Amino acid sequence: MHIKKQRLLTPGPTPLYPPALHAMMASDMHHRTEDFRKAYRSCLADLKEVMGTSGDVLMFCSSGTGVMDATVSNLFSRGEKVIVCVAGKFGERWAEIAKAYGLDANVITVPYGQVVTPAQVQEALAKEPATKGVFIQASETSTGAAHDVRAMAAAIAKTPAIFVVDAITGLGTMPLDIDGWGLDVVIGGSQKAFMIPPGLAFLSLSPKAWKLSETSTLPHFYFNFKKEKKSGDAGESSWTPSTALILAMAEALRYVKSLGMSKLVENAQLLAEATRAAVQRLGLELFAAASPGSSVTAVKAPAGMDSGVIVKEFRNRFGAIIANGQGSMKGQIFRIAHLGYFDFADLFAVVAGLEIILNANGYKVAYGTGVAAVQELYERVAVQPQTVNA
Amino acid sequence: MHIKKQRLLTPGPTPLYPPALHAMMASDMHHRTEDFRKAYRSCLADLKEVMGTSGDVLMFCSSGTGVMDATVSNLFSRGEKVIVCVAGKFGERWAEIAKAYGLDANVITVPYGQVVTPAQVQEALAKEPATKGVFIQASETSTGAAHDVRAMAAAIAKTPAIFVVDAITGLGTMPLDIDGWGLDVVIGGSQKAFMIPPGLAFLSLSPKAWKLSETSTLPHFYFNFKKEKKSGDAGESSWTPSTALILAMAEALRYVKSLGMSKLVENAQLLAEATRAAVQRLGLELFAAASPGSSVTAVKAPAGMDSGVIVKEFRNRFGAIIANGQGSMKGQIFRIAHLGYFDFADLFAVVAGLEIILNANGYKVAYGTGVAAVQELYERVAVQPQTVNA
Repeated sequence: MHIKKQRLLTPGPTPLYPPALHAMMASDMHHRTEDFRKAYRSCLADLKEVMGTSGDVLMFCSSGTGVMDATVSNLFSRGEKVIVCVAGKFGERWAEIAKAYGLDANVITVPYGQVVTPAQVQEALAKEPATKGVFIQASETSTGAAHDVRAMAAAIAKTPAIFVVDAITGLGTMPLDIDGWGLDVVIGGSQKAFMIPPGLAFLSLSPKAWKLSETSTLPHFYFNFKKEKKSGDAGESSWTPSTALILAMAEALRYVKSLGMSKLVENAQLLAEATRAAVQRLGLELFAAASPGSSVTAVKAPAGMDSGVIVKEFRNRFGAIIANGQGSMKGQIFRIAHLGYFDFADLFAVVAGLEIILNANGYKVAYGTGVAAVQELYERVAVQPQTVNA
Repeated sequence: MHIKKQRLLTPGPTPLYPPALHAMMASDMHHRTEDFRKAYRSCLADLKEVMGTSGDVLMFCSSGTGVMDATVSNLFSRGEKVIVCVAGKFGERWAEIAKAYGLDANVITVPYGQVVTPAQVQEALAKEPATKGVFIQASETSTGAAHDVRAMAAAIAKTPAIFVVDAITGLGTMPLDIDGWGLDVVIGGSQKAFMIPPGLAFLSLSPKAWKLSETSTLPHFYFNFKKEKKSGDAGESSWTPSTALILAMAEALRYVKSLGMSKLVENAQLLAEATRAAVQRLGLELFAAASPGSSVTAVKAPAGMDSGVIVKEFRNRFGAIIANGQGSMKGQIFRIAHLGYFDFADLFAVVAGLEIILNANGYKVAYGTGVAAVQELYERVAVQPQTVNA
């Protein structure tokens, strides 16, 4: 007999930061009190700081999809021309939302695993100068690919269109200079690099984005950017907030601030690089090989092996929940996450477990081969003591 | 020096059920796993059972306002005629939502503290046979008044209109026979009689309500009843769910089920009756004297005393957060809650504290006068041992 600890190693929900979990317990707090306003103000101010923007940041009780929806219903009008970049399941969601609200969307679709290029966006903008917005994922969680949002932003900034970036798994895993690059809307969620359970979503808004809210005619009520901005300025949310999660978020943000957002990004990048090195050393193929992001690494299952077997074996043998492919990628790829509260020790365990599972299912590898790749990278970068729990 | 424990005694968030809080801590759970589906299915099934309906129940990650919004955007179309009953701040919210979505609303407004009568609704329906829906609060939290939804339902059932009942503080504080009376939509929230923090909202839908979803043309995406029904049938939510709160909800619902919903209602009714007896014995006036509900009792501050003083003194002297009046009622009334995890010991403390605060602020009462009224009612009803923590 051996103990199997439960380990959540998926690209969202991600591993939870324990002090934030403990903070949730203090949620016997009324939301119209100074104690709560203090926590709420601290959340909004710290989010602005770690996102690195001087623009407004608003927070909502919803999943990330709620704020994607809200961005369309608050900033656009029926029939307006937009460009939607689709490189996976979450890009498809942008297309569905645009359709639900009657936008006139030019959908640029690339196969799963590939990315939409800045040239494609530029060309589409040139063809339709009346374009009001460009929608994309910074990091497409379903494939592990990352978009070059910096280059796209440079092209979009010259047009009347706003750039709407779903950075739900992009924040904390890649550099995103919101103000410097001109990312007009950047959307995040609590259950990703922010290390707490799902249930909160937030966004930043540039002055160019706010301007669109003046002309938008789509109906909305619960998600109301103007009202929420006014409430947030007073240290409150417009409707009853998710008090438990906000207390958790305030605690997690203190930790992220103490690390520094750039260090959190560096951590994800190192773990992603080590993961790529490990699986390639094991002879496996990366899925989004040309543009791999650092939120999650998608790996192709060996020929003849269903990736679902690997996911199931991780759960059964090691109690670890890793992610299968989504949609049409189910069974084809498995995904190893790096966003948020992940460390090298997690990765040693994942790669060692993977080696055992591959062997047991007929894909023979020498034990320790992949782990050694992670260890070598660790040794190269671990010249200075790394931060542990604050 | 004396310790002041923090006590949340407001009509939402309400006192938290400790085992549910502890359950939140186990939220390192992925939402597309059998473990989570089990918790989610149990939530939906137990909600159906305690709400007492054979209709569908859907749950969303939002505040109650989110599901009020969703009811309009999923079931109605721009320009449709509806009747909105306004007896306080939450009735006003229905009117605002109807306006935001362009419904043609006949708003029946009565002064704060009073209720809209079944005759008023019947008359409005007779005048406009094309009415598609009637919106109301079962219990208007801002004033403590309860509507006679049973009589209204009987009138509405004979027309093509659906009856949409915000029962966010009505559920668990008053009998609501959803199927028997014909309440087509009944909306609830996690932070009320369900004893957990805010962040989840839910609703029941009758076949008559579902029929309207076939003709509704208002745009929506995040809140999608048809999609959510399909997801719920598969034990999942359409978008990433608020895992921590769902685990809490599953635990709290087990407790509510073990009590029985009718016993929870009886508890609120007894505490409300005892509160009315106590404050009247102290010579204070009830605010919604004609139609007092059992979710919260609104009491007029003595002449010349700002109710805010009473609220502030409760916080400073006893660490207890009770509710002031909302909107135009601020300073006029204070509100003592009874919904959910409240017991007689809470009420002994509240009334004893109130006596001290009244005395200290120039309204002289003999100590123990109000408490005795609560004790007498307790003695009368406590013939059988009452349920404690399961």
